[in-house]
Amino acid sequence: MINSLAYSPITRTPTSEDFSQTLLYRHLHTLLSKPSITPNDAGCQQYLAEQLVGLGFSCHQFTVNGVSNLVAKIGHGDKRIAFAGHTDVVPPGDLARWKHQAFTPTIDQGKIYARGIADMKGGIATMLHAFSRVKETLDLVNNQFFFLITSDEEGEADFGTKEIVAYLQQQQLMPHLCIVGEPTASEVTGDVIKVGRRGAISGDIVIQGKQGHVAYPHVAKNAAHGAAKLAYLLSELAWDEGSVDFPGSSLQVTSIDTGPWTDNIIPGSAKVSFNVRYSHKYHQETVEQRIKQIVDEMINDELTLSLTWQRPCIPYFTEKPNNNSISLITAAEQAIYQVCHRFPRLSTSGGTSDGRFLAQSGCQVIELGVPNKTIHQVNESVEIEDILVLDNIYQQLLLNLMA
Amino acid sequence: MINSLAYSPITRTPTSEDFSQTLLYRHLHTLLSKPSITPNDAGCQQYLAEQLVGLGFSCHQFTVNGVSNLVAKIGHGDKRIAFAGHTDVVPPGDLARWKHQAFTPTIDQGKIYARGIADMKGGIATMLHAFSRVKETLDLVNNQFFFLITSDEEGEADFGTKEIVAYLQQQQLMPHLCIVGEPTASEVTGDVIKVGRRGAISGDIVIQGKQGHVAYPHVAKNAAHGAAKLAYLLSELAWDEGSVDFPGSSLQVTSIDTGPWTDNIIPGSAKVSFNVRYSHKYHQETVEQRIKQIVDEMINDELTLSLTWQRPCIPYFTEKPNNNSISLITAAEQAIYQVCHRFPRLSTSGGTSDGRFLAQSGCQVIELGVPNKTIHQVNESVEIEDILVLDNIYQQLLLNLMA
Ligand SMILES: [Zn+2]
Ligand SMILES: [Zn+2]
Repeated sequence: MINSLAYSPITRTPTSEDFSQTLLYRHLHTLLSKPSITPNDAGCQQYLAEQLVGLGFSCHQFTVNGVSNLVAKIGHGDKRIAFAGHTDVVPPGDLARWKHQAFTPTIDQGKIYARGIADMKGGIATMLHAFSRVKETLDLVNNQFFFLITSDEEGEADFGTKEIVAYLQQQQLMPHLCIVGEPTASEVTGDVIKVGRRGAISGDIVIQGKQGHVAYPHVAKNAAHGAAKLAYLLSELAWDEGSVDFPGSSLQVTSIDTGPWTDNIIPGSAKVSFNVRYSHKYHQETVEQRIKQIVDEMINDELTLSLTWQRPCIPYFTEKPNNNSISLITAAEQAIYQVCHRFPRLSTSGGTSDGRFLAQSGCQVIELGVPNKTIHQVNESVEIEDILVLDNIYQQLLLNLMA
Repeated sequence: MINSLAYSPITRTPTSEDFSQTLLYRHLHTLLSKPSITPNDAGCQQYLAEQLVGLGFSCHQFTVNGVSNLVAKIGHGDKRIAFAGHTDVVPPGDLARWKHQAFTPTIDQGKIYARGIADMKGGIATMLHAFSRVKETLDLVNNQFFFLITSDEEGEADFGTKEIVAYLQQQQLMPHLCIVGEPTASEVTGDVIKVGRRGAISGDIVIQGKQGHVAYPHVAKNAAHGAAKLAYLLSELAWDEGSVDFPGSSLQVTSIDTGPWTDNIIPGSAKVSFNVRYSHKYHQETVEQRIKQIVDEMINDELTLSLTWQRPCIPYFTEKPNNNSISLITAAEQAIYQVCHRFPRLSTSGGTSDGRFLAQSGCQVIELGVPNKTIHQVNESVEIEDILVLDNIYQQLLLNLMA
């Protein structure tokens, strides 16, 4: 296989005027007009459910703690393929800095501007459109297709995809293959897909010493000295190094807090906070154990330390299967090659995503979407062409998975 | 010499009623009734000047930046002996917790209660009284005697004893021997005198890195990691160890501040603050150089560090002279032995004092006063007996210095 063919744009790009008349733009426009700031769905999933029912899907919509979730299903058989995504968006930020109104999608010089066009209503509208375009050629006797949509990916994510997965497991309907429509491209759609994400966990360590006067250090126990040594040891921990696409693991101290300062007072307590991003080479337990060991070794007559863990996010990593079962990564690589005449870089960089919940029961998960250059910023925008390329890739991928 | 005779109380202790009729109590009562919170003298020095003029002193009173200073002089000749002290007191604190009103001196079960009775109006009143008692037997032809009093020892001390010393140097009247009436005793007057104090200096080190997201540590420069390493290296610096009476040197980190915390943000700047207490074995320049070297070695491509110094207080240390000149320490030890039948412990412990300014031009300085158990607290108090013992010691010391 050839690894890096030049990207040749698809030739049938419509003009902006043409595009604004398409069904795909109708999906985009409807979703982007709804101010669905986390966890408010603002009617996005109702629109999706109506469209999917129109295509023959059966829909299960449920709300948990204010989070809207949609599970749509069509087809029969033992192979389960899912599209997944989120309808919620981050707040628009400084409205005065938007060229066009954040929730009034606008085509301007070949780009669509709107909060969520990249992250990730563009992906959702395109999945829906792509499915409708190839539905007639899909084998719905031996395959089940799912749309798994939540309104809380940008927030705490406690009652979104996690609940969808719980529901699917209870129904024994966990998909085997899942395409998440998150914006993963760097410059143009198809240049990068994600095949995993690092795990993350935060921790706080409280160091208790004994406050005292600087003139009498022998009757005090300086918690700032303990915090300094601890944070130094944490920062010196060695992890796997990683590369550009498969970033290694890293511990970053995010705060050292010795309390209110007085020039002649030895601090009696202190707090060190840190965040670890770790690759699939580690388990969460291993990460915790490595840090706990440093903490335990520092406990002595002078100082007591207590460690608490916060916000654990497990990593996920999809590989091409060893056995004869279908490889979602291979199918996606081929689809991208067929549409773009290039192969994507496989990456696991960036923050956490809902992919981690879907991958837990052995489901192959990839993330494949438009460029992410403008996500979470003012003037979030995507080239029409990047949307159209994604539409073609999704269609081709569905066909490849039937082969 | 015998080092530790049991303390035998002087037998002629008057009753509380007797004592309240004495001249010494009149001095105490007058000074203690004036709420002379730093730097306000509230008329204390005016009273002292009137009393000293009555004894034949000539007085120079001057005010610098709101600080009142008094230089009183009597006698002739080349040997200059000074009593020194401060009329200012720290605020009384929670008035509700005082048994008796803070500025209404009250005798209660053999103790005098009032803000400043220990630190150090008790010492000043007693110096004045002791001098008046032995004045007739002093050699005023070959000795000059001074009272050096300021109203800012408890504050910044920038315009108090420092200005008095400047005046004396300009007049070529710097004393050779100086007794500071600070409360130095532990349990009973005469058990401990100070023959020096450690130096002190504070510093701030600002560490500048580059803020970033925890997921992308390679494009950030974690200032918290720099602060941790720096504070750890500072805390590990080895200094002289010292003993109970001659405490060694110590560096204490008083704060590590990495700014407002966000779980996924790598701090871009941080500040480490510290305080050093150092014995007379170091010069201020040596102390600064040792720390500057650690800071300089940490500066690299990742981090810039900037160090600023705050509140330097030089140390002082009085020794018994090698030559035949008179030893103030020996004279005081003997006076205490004559009055109390014990020898004092010589100490350099505790915080800084104005002794450092007086000792600068080679003057022998000791501090000798009442017990310091209650200083700066509510219900500051001193046993009448401890005042009377101090009166006797001061008298005996003046006589010994004439020998
Ligand atoms: Zn997203
Ligand atoms: Zn004092």
